Amino acid sequence: MLQTPPAAPGDREEDIDTPALLIDLDAFEANIARMADFLRPTQARLRAHAKTHKSPVIAHLQMKAGAVGQCVQKVAEAEALAWGGVPNILVSNEVVGAAKLARLAALARVAEIGVCADDAGEVSALEAAAEAARIRLSVLVEIDVGAGRCGVAPGPEAVALARRIAASPHLRFGGLQAYHGSAQHIRRYGERAAAIEGAVAQARRTVEQLKQQGLECEIVGGGGTGTFPFEAGSGVFNEIQAGSYVFMDADYGRNLDEAEAPVSTFAQSLFVLGTVMSRPRPEVAVVDVGLKAVAVDSGLPLAWGRPGIRYVGASDEHGKMVVEDGGAAPRLGEKLRLVPGHCDPTVDRYDWYVGVRKGRVECLWPVTARGGFS
Amino acid sequence: MLQTPPAAPGDREEDIDTPALLIDLDAFEANIARMADFLRPTQARLRAHAKTHKSPVIAHLQMKAGAVGQCVQKVAEAEALAWGGVPNILVSNEVVGAAKLARLAALARVAEIGVCADDAGEVSALEAAAEAARIRLSVLVEIDVGAGRCGVAPGPEAVALARRIAASPHLRFGGLQAYHGSAQHIRRYGERAAAIEGAVAQARRTVEQLKQQGLECEIVGGGGTGTFPFEAGSGVFNEIQAGSYVFMDADYGRNLDEAEAPVSTFAQSLFVLGTVMSRPRPEVAVVDVGLKAVAVDSGLPLAWGRPGIRYVGASDEHGKMVVEDGGAAPRLGEKLRLVPGHCDPTVDRYDWYVGVRKGRVECLWPVTARGGFS
Repeated sequence: MLQTPPAAPGDREEDIDTPALLIDLDAFEANIARMADFLRPTQARLRAHAKTHKSPVIAHLQMKAGAVGQCVQKVAEAEALAWGGVPNILVSNEVVGAAKLARLAALARVAEIGVCADDAGEVSALEAAAEAARIRLSVLVEIDVGAGRCGVAPGPEAVALARRIAASPHLRFGGLQAYHGSAQHIRRYGERAAAIEGAVAQARRTVEQLKQQGLECEIVGGGGTGTFPFEAGSGVFNEIQAGSYVFMDADYGRNLDEAEAPVSTFAQSLFVLGTVMSRPRPEVAVVDVGLKAVAVDSGLPLAWGRPGIRYVGASDEHGKMVVEDGGAAPRLGEKLRLVPGHCDPTVDRYDWYVGVRKGRVECLWPVTARGGFS
Repeated sequence: MLQTPPAAPGDREEDIDTPALLIDLDAFEANIARMADFLRPTQARLRAHAKTHKSPVIAHLQMKAGAVGQCVQKVAEAEALAWGGVPNILVSNEVVGAAKLARLAALARVAEIGVCADDAGEVSALEAAAEAARIRLSVLVEIDVGAGRCGVAPGPEAVALARRIAASPHLRFGGLQAYHGSAQHIRRYGERAAAIEGAVAQARRTVEQLKQQGLECEIVGGGGTGTFPFEAGSGVFNEIQAGSYVFMDADYGRNLDEAEAPVSTFAQSLFVLGTVMSRPRPEVAVVDVGLKAVAVDSGLPLAWGRPGIRYVGASDEHGKMVVEDGGAAPRLGEKLRLVPGHCDPTVDRYDWYVGVRKGRVECLWPVTARGGFS
């Protein structure tokens, strides 16, 4: 059952029903423009990660500003984008299982589809799915450049897998997937830079070894909101897979720049709007934003523009907030903007984005690819 | 967009697409029967909490086994149940805001609806909504019996609010809501018992003071999966609001009984089924169950029936597992059952329950009331 839309265009922000997922459209559009401006003088193009927004509407806005396409993390997200008219989609991940591979191959009739592999047996499975669907699938080799998650070792192991892909009449060798996930939230600038220096060296070495075998990398992709300036300036990466930049969250807000100040490249554009539903004691306010309305895996949400009010605990449907010395206590029924700790899984709780500008609702966009199924 | 059903009745468990939310029907039915058997000789009846299952199908099964109705935590859940034919629903929580109150009052035309209050101004708002809808709403006074979240103080403050409710021609005083949430996961039996002893004393005192004012409590409700035997045996509580008992989770599995062994009253019946999607190194297996497929607020999921395999880290769409000494390594493509850390918000990630019995899919049930909106 689709959730009831919490507002209609023209409504005032304070009349939006809650919990609701808000996009501050001015900040959101500025983030899209800022990323485009940053990448324009580099060799890298944006392939924005849709695991953040899950929305063909936002994908098209990013592509209008210069993104070459979108990344997704699973077949269900690829379907939502392809069915929403997004023409170029890379599953920046492995896809396993015959049912999922058949769904993926079917999409290659309506969009350019790429996918990653880190296992020769899986390449055979991709080949069988592509042959059965009578399409040709672009397959990138995922290399582990430091994250310790998926991916083959850079160098000879990656070259062997690329040769296997290139030898198939049903597949096309698409390049390298070289995302260093665990570097994105290293707080200090120098340490983030050092982690990506290692990733760049591994990617460069692998690209060169592939070239010696006559294999060109159409795509060398990686980089996220925490590290993309390093990959974009490396001369090796040609696609940047940042997703969170468009919304930001409290966790990314804790990354530091060269001067040890919070990185301020992008503005917070995503909020969860909550209502104070109980004021049992002067120092306590309970909001209707709990575990089902905001993700807490990367820390609790922050109260936006309300110093002295702190979110201290989440249960299923409640968020307990405390009013600290000097904080202006919220009244019962008051609406509060919260900054989620982690944007991607927070978006996943909602069927609707509510776009607001200068205090008024301007648009409702569906969160098309939400949910646990892949 | 509704998620694609991951299976069809008759499929083998190993052919279910993933991530999927599984109910082991034998264990699930045994849990329902066991709770009914336990409460039969007590003065308390079950009003099962639907914030766990979010499903009219499961609500009806619980009521067939003797539950007097259902609890919910928000209006969207009440709507899903009422529209699914559940006749008796208590919102065990405060509801704030004119739009939500109008939705709640409208439901009172198709089901018995109760709601809680902890503020006189909110009682006036409930009264206005009931009058406008020309219905009579049952309102319980929520008292804080130790959880430190919502609720007025037990005793005179509660009595004053009850008198305010009883004085309204549009409301009916429904009794006391006295749930001690933070006691549910106190690990040691004696400490859980002591916490509820305090809650029972507060509820008893308040019931007696209300009686002195001529106010009878039709409902004295509380108790969860961690503490319900204490409330049920108290002689004060007449409704038990357990929800998780029907599924269980890793967090409840850590509660201890009198002999310091894990409480074994209920069996684990809820699982997330995942697929091993990468085996980059012998000691690492990556599954397709990450932050969007399982809740991690109360700890990481556990591998079911697979000693020596441990889930060590979640990102958006990946779960990293390590194979420890003596563990049987899973193969690429293998399906694994995981026990969620916290059942309620895990269910919230899915559109479909897949009911399995003896290795075969028996039914698909929609998770009707999922999502962040309330």
